[in-house]
Amino acid sequence: MARRYDSRTTTFSPEGRLYQVEYAMEAISHAGICVGILAKDGIVLAVEKKITSKLLENISSEKMYKVDDHLACAVAGITADANILINYARLAAQRYSLTYQEPIPVEQLIINLCDRKQGYTQFGGLRPFGVSFLWAGWDKNYGFQLYQSDPSGNYGGWKATAIGANNQAAQSILKQEYKNDMELTEAVKLAIKVLNKSMDSTSLTSEKLEIATVSMVEGSLQYKILDGATVDAALKELDLQPTETS
Amino acid sequence: MARRYDSRTTTFSPEGRLYQVEYAMEAISHAGICVGILAKDGIVLAVEKKITSKLLENISSEKMYKVDDHLACAVAGITADANILINYARLAAQRYSLTYQEPIPVEQLIINLCDRKQGYTQFGGLRPFGVSFLWAGWDKNYGFQLYQSDPSGNYGGWKATAIGANNQAAQSILKQEYKNDMELTEAVKLAIKVLNKSMDSTSLTSEKLEIATVSMVEGSLQYKILDGATVDAALKELDLQPTETS
Amino acid sequence: MARRYDSRTTTFSPEGRLYQVEYAMEAISHAGICVGILAKDGIVLAVEKKITSKLLENISSEKMYKVDDHLACAVAGITADANILINYARLAAQRYSLTYQEPIPVEQLIINLCDRKQGYTQFGGLRPFGVSFLWAGWDKNYGFQLYQSDPSGNYGGWKATAIGANNQAAQSILKQEYKNDMELTEAVKLAIKVLNKSMDSTSLTSEKLEIATVSMVEGSLQYKILDGATVDAALKELDLQPTETS
Amino acid sequence: MARRYDSRTTTFSPEGRLYQVEYAMEAISHAGICVGILAKDGIVLAVEKKITSKLLENISSEKMYKVDDHLACAVAGITADANILINYARLAAQRYSLTYQEPIPVEQLIINLCDRKQGYTQFGGLRPFGVSFLWAGWDKNYGFQLYQSDPSGNYGGWKATAIGANNQAAQSILKQEYKNDMELTEAVKLAIKVLNKSMDSTSLTSEKLEIATVSMVEGSLQYKILDGATVDAALKELDLQPTETS
Amino acid sequence: MARRYDSRTTTFSPEGRLYQVEYAMEAISHAGICVGILAKDGIVLAVEKKITSKLLENISSEKMYKVDDHLACAVAGITADANILINYARLAAQRYSLTYQEPIPVEQLIINLCDRKQGYTQFGGLRPFGVSFLWAGWDKNYGFQLYQSDPSGNYGGWKATAIGANNQAAQSILKQEYKNDMELTEAVKLAIKVLNKSMDSTSLTSEKLEIATVSMVEGSLQYKILDGATVDAALKELDLQPTETS
Amino acid sequence: MARRYDSRTTTFSPEGRLYQVEYAMEAISHAGICVGILAKDGIVLAVEKKITSKLLENISSEKMYKVDDHLACAVAGITADANILINYARLAAQRYSLTYQEPIPVEQLIINLCDRKQGYTQFGGLRPFGVSFLWAGWDKNYGFQLYQSDPSGNYGGWKATAIGANNQAAQSILKQEYKNDMELTEAVKLAIKVLNKSMDSTSLTSEKLEIATVSMVEGSLQYKILDGATVDAALKELDLQPTETS
Amino acid sequence: MARRYDSRTTTFSPEGRLYQVEYAMEAISHAGICVGILAKDGIVLAVEKKITSKLLENISSEKMYKVDDHLACAVAGITADANILINYARLAAQRYSLTYQEPIPVEQLIINLCDRKQGYTQFGGLRPFGVSFLWAGWDKNYGFQLYQSDPSGNYGGWKATAIGANNQAAQSILKQEYKNDMELTEAVKLAIKVLNKSMDSTSLTSEKLEIATVSMVEGSLQYKILDGATVDAALKELDLQPTETS
Repeated sequence: MARRYDSRTTTFSPEGRLYQVEYAMEAISHAGICVGILAKDGIVLAVEKKITSKLLENISSEKMYKVDDHLACAVAGITADANILINYARLAAQRYSLTYQEPIPVEQLIINLCDRKQGYTQFGGLRPFGVSFLWAGWDKNYGFQLYQSDPSGNYGGWKATAIGANNQAAQSILKQEYKNDMELTEAVKLAIKVLNKSMDSTSLTSEKLEIATVSMVEGSLQYKILDGATVDAALKELDLQPTETS
Repeated sequence: MARRYDSRTTTFSPEGRLYQVEYAMEAISHAGICVGILAKDGIVLAVEKKITSKLLENISSEKMYKVDDHLACAVAGITADANILINYARLAAQRYSLTYQEPIPVEQLIINLCDRKQGYTQFGGLRPFGVSFLWAGWDKNYGFQLYQSDPSGNYGGWKATAIGANNQAAQSILKQEYKNDMELTEAVKLAIKVLNKSMDSTSLTSEKLEIATVSMVEGSLQYKILDGATVDAALKELDLQPTETS
Repeated sequence: MARRYDSRTTTFSPEGRLYQVEYAMEAISHAGICVGILAKDGIVLAVEKKITSKLLENISSEKMYKVDDHLACAVAGITADANILINYARLAAQRYSLTYQEPIPVEQLIINLCDRKQGYTQFGGLRPFGVSFLWAGWDKNYGFQLYQSDPSGNYGGWKATAIGANNQAAQSILKQEYKNDMELTEAVKLAIKVLNKSMDSTSLTSEKLEIATVSMVEGSLQYKILDGATVDAALKELDLQPTETS
Repeated sequence: MARRYDSRTTTFSPEGRLYQVEYAMEAISHAGICVGILAKDGIVLAVEKKITSKLLENISSEKMYKVDDHLACAVAGITADANILINYARLAAQRYSLTYQEPIPVEQLIINLCDRKQGYTQFGGLRPFGVSFLWAGWDKNYGFQLYQSDPSGNYGGWKATAIGANNQAAQSILKQEYKNDMELTEAVKLAIKVLNKSMDSTSLTSEKLEIATVSMVEGSLQYKILDGATVDAALKELDLQPTETS
Repeated sequence: MARRYDSRTTTFSPEGRLYQVEYAMEAISHAGICVGILAKDGIVLAVEKKITSKLLENISSEKMYKVDDHLACAVAGITADANILINYARLAAQRYSLTYQEPIPVEQLIINLCDRKQGYTQFGGLRPFGVSFLWAGWDKNYGFQLYQSDPSGNYGGWKATAIGANNQAAQSILKQEYKNDMELTEAVKLAIKVLNKSMDSTSLTSEKLEIATVSMVEGSLQYKILDGATVDAALKELDLQPTETS
Repeated sequence: MARRYDSRTTTFSPEGRLYQVEYAMEAISHAGICVGILAKDGIVLAVEKKITSKLLENISSEKMYKVDDHLACAVAGITADANILINYARLAAQRYSLTYQEPIPVEQLIINLCDRKQGYTQFGGLRPFGVSFLWAGWDKNYGFQLYQSDPSGNYGGWKATAIGANNQAAQSILKQEYKNDMELTEAVKLAIKVLNKSMDSTSLTSEKLEIATVSMVEGSLQYKILDGATVDAALKELDLQPTETS
Repeated sequence: MARRYDSRTTTFSPEGRLYQVEYAMEAISHAGICVGILAKDGIVLAVEKKITSKLLENISSEKMYKVDDHLACAVAGITADANILINYARLAAQRYSLTYQEPIPVEQLIINLCDRKQGYTQFGGLRPFGVSFLWAGWDKNYGFQLYQSDPSGNYGGWKATAIGANNQAAQSILKQEYKNDMELTEAVKLAIKVLNKSMDSTSLTSEKLEIATVSMVEGSLQYKILDGATVDAALKELDLQPTETS
């Protein structure tokens, strides 16, 4: 019965559902998990790398992107769709900077982007963007902020959240272990712990995950991807490093 | 039989119904309830918060929005759709202010917005906006005013009304208990009472609802979201505060 | 069989019918009845108020609208559709006034509006406007005039007519009782009588109907909505006032 | 089988037919009959008035229209569609007059209009105009002329013809009784006779038909609708006036 | 099976056929026959008049048109479609004359027109033009020329050819009797003979056919429609005139 | 099963095929064969004339076209489609000449044309062009060149190739008999031989085929269609001339 | 079941898949294999030539293209689609050079192109491009780089990768034998080895494959297609040259 109403974004089902938006979210639920945690001195984004091959050249991350000096994001879903939206976000951020000579407030950029996403759920001849985002940003009004946005164009502010495969499991760990005044270093460890429990792989190595932080270093914002050694050290400290034999 | 006519806004059914508009209203009937009450010295908007998580960061309300100094609204339905219309309303209000050097009359703004909504029920390749609004505003011609608008582009002026889940139950309480010259403080209590009776949760706490007022404070309009303590106090006074044991 | 040809305005049925237009008229046949009567010194419009609630705020009428100083209308059907067309009519009337420094002739405005309505019955990706109108106007060429227009874009001039639910019954009373040189006061009474016989409610009160007149008062046109007391007095005079016990 | 090819004007049936155009003609075959007769000193147009009510206000004819000083038409089919085309014809005629300082040649205007009609039978997302016309005009090249045009955009010049219900019957009477050098007064009588035989009503009165003539009066063209008394006199003379008892 | 591929011009059938174009040609195969014959001193076009009524006013031919001084055409198929293309051809011819101060070369005009026809067989939301043409023209490069074009946009140069009903029969007579250096007068007789054999009517009269010639008279091109007497004389000479008794 | 994916160019089948493009190629496989052979001193194009009638006037070839002084083509498929593309090619060639004062390089023109062809296989509301081409050209960079392009927009450079009916048979003869440094006169003979073997007709005459060459004559390029006598002589020499008795 | 969701790019399946994109990839999996290997002093691209005929004229490669001085690509899939994208890439590269007076960074060009590809997977009335690319480029920021992009608009950086038929087999050989600091000459040999194992043909000759390198020669970038002799020599050295008898 649902099938009569699920092929277009311009059709509500009798229960008032938009199936195409729900199907787009289904695409995301198979993507590698992304975890975001807001600490008092920064934000950590941590992602599972699903495709790992020693032949892959890591010129740029495939799951985390810097949008502007004060904003980065992690992506779950169709990468090509994400690229379109990130380019759009970068342009919007730059336009704002040029016009007002200050960085765009974080929520304003996300509203802008989500309005665009929403349009793809209401106009004919389009499909929704098959991608969810975690946005880690800072602005002078609200300091560090963490947002999550989804294919419907909906978004919300979070202290800690997760998107992608097994995000339910991740969310419940976060609920239990998140503390309101965490330091960024603690947050990194929590993120790794969450990834470890929600990823299918039995042993976690620095090759299977990627971790980035947005923090204030000597008065200026810094987006940093942690290198393999740092991640391995953290894994070791958490006793999550696989034994050599496995 | 209805199914032949229910997939497009550009098709009347033989009985002259527009099913897509009715389905959009169905989406709203599952949303958290919103109550609006017009008092002689202001207006109260009260909403149920359906998603509550200690990890949610409440930078801005997800269900109530300030449109302009003299106008606020509460939302039931698809949040992403609401965002589009609220942005549109904000721009229209600002354009009017700039042109005429005074705030836009409340009904004029709502007519403008509803014309836009109507268009999405008559043109091909679109779906209706899946959202209903309560609008609380003031202008020099009619003083405080409360309007309700729905996905069809229909709207009406009310003394007290409710949209979203269980709005029928809420309406009948309002009919019984609304008095024509209520003070705003009484209206707040009535709003809480209505929410209490129409929400599914057995015990009401300040985390599960949000209350805002539009009133005149020292000669200028003020949109205020009541803080948790104030709400808890009101709940206590109404004897609706859950016991600690539950 | 009809079903193959009834989903688009761009498709004739083999009998040369446009079902979508007929379905739109079906929507109107469920709306509250509107009666219009042309008197020698003015026109009366009378409408049934289907939704009555003591919580409704009557800032403006939901069924009757002033278009310009010399033109008003009553509406049966989808209110949101009516709003679009009335806004359009208001703009057209103002544009004419500005250009020619005199009010637009009544029929010219209605032709303009009906051409627009017709377009929605001939172009793809649209549905007809689900609304019929009674237009009460005056111009220097033809004096007081009463027109009726429907979703097809068809219109005609009438001495007395009715649209909406039970309009057939209303028409036949009008045929029997209409006299060619009625005074406006007589016409008001006839309108109430017709409403009384065609509305389903057993007892008529001033809350269930709304009456407006367009007439010449001291040399200038006046659009006036009769207040509750006046209507009640008329009801009493006609012995239609319900007894208190009912 | 025909049904596969009959829902769009952009689809030929295997036999090379355009069913939508034929269906549009079907709509016309139910309309009141229109008769046109070319006399040596003018043209007569005569139409059946299908809707007759003493409440109807005859400000303007619903079936015959003056397009320009030298051109009038009678209409069978959907009135709203006719209005669009007549407005278009009026504008085209005026534009020509303004540009060339003389009235548009009759056939040129009809070609212009028929090209427009044809477009609605060839482009997607449209339906044909559901209306046929009789055009009565005069120009300096060809004198008085009578044309008929139909929904396909086809047109032809005639000495006498009929469109609408029972036009076949009417045509055969015309064939028998038309004489090449008729006077306009004879033509009017023939037109009434044809209407009398082709209309369903048993008794003909001046209320059920409308007659107009285009003729040269004192050197200038005159479009005149015959008043009731004149028509009744003609009916009497033809012995077609119903007896009072019927 | 063919039925899956025959409703749009934008769909090839598995055998590479465009059914809509073939159906358009079917429409033409029911139209009155047109014959064209190229003589050394001119061209003759001869057409069957299918609709004959003594009430028809022959202001202009319905099947043959002058495009420019040096070009005329005969039409088989939907007349309204033909009118569009002939208007287009006239404009193109005039534009060329204005720009280059000489008549447009015959083939260039036909290519232009056929490109337009082709477009209607390749773009969505359109149907092919349901009309074939015979073009009779002269230019300084190639002298007298006879072309045939069809709904696909295909065209070719011929010495003698026929389109419309029974064109096959006509073609085979032409093959037998056409001689390379015919005089125009002989060609006229051959055309009549061909029409006589291919038309269904048992007896041919000048009312049932129309004959036109394009020839050089005193150094300038002349398009002439033969009058009834001339045609009757030719019929008599050919012994094709019906006996009075039949 | 294929049938679900074969009606639009915008739909891949599950095997990644575009059926509409394949159907367009099917249309070509029924067309008269075209053979192209690259010789060291020129190129020969030879085509089968499927429609032969002594009434056909050969003003211009229906299967071979000169595009520019340095480029000609032969066509298999829908002639009307070919005309569109050839006109396009001629304009592109002229535009280039005007801009750069030298002829357009052969491959550049073909890329331009093929990009256009490709568009018709990727955008909705269109069908592919139902035509394949052989292009014979010369430019200063690569000398004489022979290309083949098909409805998909694909093209390739060949020494000798064939398109249309029985092109497989023709290709295999070419593979056997083509020599790398053929003279143009030899190439003409080979082309005739190939046509003779691939055409269905039992006896070949100069009326059933058409042969053109592009070669350098006294330092300038020459496109020449061989006259009947030359072709007959070649046929005789090859002993392919039918005996008079057959 | 999948079939309900597989005919448009604007429809997600219930599992969140875009079948049209997957079908486009299926088209590529039948194309000749392409291998790309990044060496420390350059990049090698090697492709299988599926269509080999001695009649083919190799003016330009059909599978490998130079985009700009610093960028070349290899193509698997629909050649006509590839041509469109390569033309687009060439223009984008030139526009950048003109504006900034330096070559476009490799990844920026690929992002640009992939955004375009992505659009064809999200907008109605389009199909995805049926082509995957290997991109071999150099820029001053990242030196030599090898990218792979597919119909979804997704892309990634690789040290060595393969697209087209049997790319899985090719990838696993590459994983085993790729070494991080290979010389270009070694890379060429590895590429040949990989092609040999993944192609269906039993014996490899220089006619069946094509090899190109991008490397720095005397300080400037050079795109070079290896000639047949060089390839044959390499085949011999690798002992892959077929024996004469086979």
